[in-house]
Amino acid sequence: MTLFVDMDEVIADTYGAHIEKYNQEFQESLTIEACMGKEVWQSVPEAHQESVHLHAHTEGFFLNLKPIDDSQDVLKALSLKYEIYIASAAMQFPNSLWEKSIWLDEHFPFIHWKNRILCGNKHILKGDLLIDDRSYNLDTFNGRTLLFTSPHNIHSNGHERANNWLEIGKKLL
Amino acid sequence: MTLFVDMDEVIADTYGAHIEKYNQEFQESLTIEACMGKEVWQSVPEAHQESVHLHAHTEGFFLNLKPIDDSQDVLKALSLKYEIYIASAAMQFPNSLWEKSIWLDEHFPFIHWKNRILCGNKHILKGDLLIDDRSYNLDTFNGRTLLFTSPHNIHSNGHERANNWLEIGKKLL
Repeated sequence: MTLFVDMDEVIADTYGAHIEKYNQEFQESLTIEACMGKEVWQSVPEAHQESVHLHAHTEGFFLNLKPIDDSQDVLKALSLKYEIYIASAAMQFPNSLWEKSIWLDEHFPFIHWKNRILCGNKHILKGDLLIDDRSYNLDTFNGRTLLFTSPHNIHSNGHERANNWLEIGKKLL
Repeated sequence: MTLFVDMDEVIADTYGAHIEKYNQEFQESLTIEACMGKEVWQSVPEAHQESVHLHAHTEGFFLNLKPIDDSQDVLKALSLKYEIYIASAAMQFPNSLWEKSIWLDEHFPFIHWKNRILCGNKHILKGDLLIDDRSYNLDTFNGRTLLFTSPHNIHSNGHERANNWLEIGKKLL
């Protein structure tokens, strides 16, 4: 069974990094609670939104992300049972490609390079299960879908939801 | 209709670059004719093989490849008729990821970043046609397959063959 796992906001805490970087840049104290139901850039004053958009173009941004809680342990256990692929829509940010590869080496060394996919659209993926935080990626997938909860998607419906990695473990192990 | 096109030795002349680089390094005059039926590294003395293996790890190697003859014109025409994706098994070489993205921007600007895939295994691709120079990539593909002729695969059988991009144009346009 082939299982695809998204990277940003599923195994890598991009959302938290946006908040942290924004707070540092503007000496603000934005909290994750204040962002619920929105993207980080939608949660800041309009004059600061462009700055948040630029984070993903900043050297080191993707290299220094924290892994999402329990993603390493649960994914390691899953990798004994399923063929796991990491599938990240990364092509928009050429500088992120190398960083994402190095980040996976560091935090998910058990995911072989053969099992890593950097792409644009995800509707080209052929497999049995896709875990992603974006409904539009799940909508076009042929197999089972799991929407991984992220602050921006708490109001999304239409896909089975997993609120954290322990829940994914319970569902799939 | 979704069409996947491999990069190295299909639209980018990796094979020719290996020969050129080898000849420069060792002041040799290896020709493509002398390599027929083999990989470049198999066509040089054993003491030099490691050096050829290292090419792909060298900064700039993928950035400076020449496009394969007629690949730009034919792919541009095909892109008006099909949904074209470039799919390259590049994850083994993290330094190549950025270079391949920039190379596509330069030589195939009409292939949007959403239509670019850098991966390991290709059996995760879902679509209608795959053009590749490696039989093992074509073997696991569900749709139509075209083996693009490269010096190393001239003895391969089992897949419909395309000897050059003009032939692909005749088959698909």
